[in-house]
Amino acid sequence: MSDKYLLISTDTHAGLPPEQYREYIDPKYREAFDEAQAADVTAAALVAEDDHQRFLAEWNSEIGDHGGMEGAWDPAVRTKEMDAEGVAAEVVFPDADAAGVGGVSGSPFGSGLNSSGDSDPVLVMAGAQAHNRWAAEFCQNDPERRYGIAIVPALHDVAAAVAEAEWAAENGLRGGIMIPTKWGSYPAYNDPVYDPLWSVCAEAGLVVHTHSGVGPTDYTWAPGFLAIYATEAYWWAARPLWALLLGGVFERHPKLRYALAENGAWWVPDILTRMDAKWEGDHSTRKFGPKTFRDGMTMKPSEYYHRNVWMASSVMGRVEVERRHEIGVERLMWGHDYPHPEGTWPHTREWLRDRFADVPEADTRRILGLNAAELYRFDLARLAPVVDRIGLTVEDVHGPAGAAA
Amino acid sequence: MSDKYLLISTDTHAGLPPEQYREYIDPKYREAFDEAQAADVTAAALVAEDDHQRFLAEWNSEIGDHGGMEGAWDPAVRTKEMDAEGVAAEVVFPDADAAGVGGVSGSPFGSGLNSSGDSDPVLVMAGAQAHNRWAAEFCQNDPERRYGIAIVPALHDVAAAVAEAEWAAENGLRGGIMIPTKWGSYPAYNDPVYDPLWSVCAEAGLVVHTHSGVGPTDYTWAPGFLAIYATEAYWWAARPLWALLLGGVFERHPKLRYALAENGAWWVPDILTRMDAKWEGDHSTRKFGPKTFRDGMTMKPSEYYHRNVWMASSVMGRVEVERRHEIGVERLMWGHDYPHPEGTWPHTREWLRDRFADVPEADTRRILGLNAAELYRFDLARLAPVVDRIGLTVEDVHGPAGAAA
Repeated sequence: MSDKYLLISTDTHAGLPPEQYREYIDPKYREAFDEAQAADVTAAALVAEDDHQRFLAEWNSEIGDHGGMEGAWDPAVRTKEMDAEGVAAEVVFPDADAAGVGGVSGSPFGSGLNSSGDSDPVLVMAGAQAHNRWAAEFCQNDPERRYGIAIVPALHDVAAAVAEAEWAAENGLRGGIMIPTKWGSYPAYNDPVYDPLWSVCAEAGLVVHTHSGVGPTDYTWAPGFLAIYATEAYWWAARPLWALLLGGVFERHPKLRYALAENGAWWVPDILTRMDAKWEGDHSTRKFGPKTFRDGMTMKPSEYYHRNVWMASSVMGRVEVERRHEIGVERLMWGHDYPHPEGTWPHTREWLRDRFADVPEADTRRILGLNAAELYRFDLARLAPVVDRIGLTVEDVHGPAGAAA
Repeated sequence: MSDKYLLISTDTHAGLPPEQYREYIDPKYREAFDEAQAADVTAAALVAEDDHQRFLAEWNSEIGDHGGMEGAWDPAVRTKEMDAEGVAAEVVFPDADAAGVGGVSGSPFGSGLNSSGDSDPVLVMAGAQAHNRWAAEFCQNDPERRYGIAIVPALHDVAAAVAEAEWAAENGLRGGIMIPTKWGSYPAYNDPVYDPLWSVCAEAGLVVHTHSGVGPTDYTWAPGFLAIYATEAYWWAARPLWALLLGGVFERHPKLRYALAENGAWWVPDILTRMDAKWEGDHSTRKFGPKTFRDGMTMKPSEYYHRNVWMASSVMGRVEVERRHEIGVERLMWGHDYPHPEGTWPHTREWLRDRFADVPEADTRRILGLNAAELYRFDLARLAPVVDRIGLTVEDVHGPAGAAA
């Protein structure tokens, strides 16, 4: 392999324009699909109209020469954009649209990033299956570079979730599965009721994901609504981490692998420190006794983390790069969140330079691609010619002075 | 004033043995009170019986020579214990018992630390009023040293909450009020529906508090239950902070003062950084437009924090001491959580030495007492003779080598 960088984006999105999902929906839910489309409200409705129009004009001009939003569903456009930014492979989530842009839709019946315990149990599965059918086709277009993620609404019917995970494994969705971040009134992920799902994922090598994005459920439209949402979003997507860790799920399923997507990782070191302190029995735990906080965990929470958990922190901030040793250089994974406006497309080169110019090459290689290659089991031999052709050079990332030490 | 340390504990607890609350309950709720007492389940029921017995034996032997738990309701015992540890004054919360120890009770009808949007609207107010009546009497025993906090279940009936806050101000509960940490299905604290309560508190100089402790409501009894609770507890008690900040409450009520009790402060710098970044319009906010995240805030979130918010981090860890400059040396307040087993009583001297030996004296004075004196408006002239008599010396805290630089 050349010395070019292997870039694997562990957070991208793909989806169809709304009406095109119709043919992938089980016919018996198509009427419900039409009704839901008519009632659809995008995030844009929450924003001042003049601000929204200004953003749209700016964004559309920015991406106009890059095929606009068409790469969300058109493999040729998408591959061209990946090539242009040096991205050899990607892990593909649903919900290409997050801002009412480009005529793209979230996956049907809110089954994507907004799926939660509050979703309609039947329709959310119908929507998930529609997206999964399409995603399996879409990724087959370039199966070595494009690992799709299956949506699995795990909460409402665990047996159905198991079946959907098995379908994903059989149909080449090699990215794994995404489960809802918020369980609502259903059991949290520490509950052994989900063990059959974890077993299937561990055996089939499906990485389990949560992805940030689901909206608030317990405060009202009032001043600060979206600012509170933005402040809290990481928390909701992260809660499954400690439900799994502290519920002993990785003790019972040592081969299960879990990744948090687009959720930062600045918060990881502090939370691990706290969980370990409870496990070790710090002063604040004395009244609960020594057994209470171990509850089936033979190792410290941080030890499971360093074995079973990855942070797909995608467009990471400087803080994640600075804290990479506490987060785990082996845990942290980059992504560019294509084609979301909060991602780095079409300016990924500049962003990489901004974040990684001073980071040692060995760490940079892990974070930008090698960790993801190991986690998702990408075939490096097959990716090598792609990297040779389109990969970024050491100078591209670290500047003309050469790589950092 | 001598050079002894002014110690003000901003987190203590007081309460009666269960049956003694009966006479403070409005007669029409006494039958309900008797029924609730019979059904009471303490935290001890969640812990393995052998662990619980071992803890009780250890704890009772530790506090036996210190009057046991009687200081929870007996002013003479309590004052003796405060004197012995050099504590000149205290801010007194409800719920002296947290672990089924000493025959003490939480305040009636779960109106104390466990109050939330899930509480019975009528009974939680009846319980709060019973505790408040008793606490007002209790603190009158030594009004310069003992500032009581009134429980105000703010969620269910804002007008009743306003009336209870006014009662607290008129009846000498100079610590301020404590509101529920979890609003459940009621409006969050960013909602202007609470403005009348904030107005009364701002005008009467009542500090508004949340205190950690309320239990989980959205996951089930399953492996990891208490470990998840312990990991998340800080978050639930902290959420009101950003609801108030981002809801513009401190913009509309510039004199309102808010303190978070027993909730650490290690998490403060990161959250402030994130909130400020949204306010300033970082890349991730672009699709929402520049107005969305300001929403009535003319200053940055961190600027309100440094004007209106205090961290009563009580038994703080080394991490709070290390991060004190980012948290704000003027914001951080010590407490000893008397008489909870997770507090430092009866070993406060050793704990202070452990945490503050190397901290410069000026910072130590702020954190151990001066910040609290300013926030709660303790009368320093009246406390001076107490400090002279019982206060710790510089050598007590910083060691025989003298104070840190």
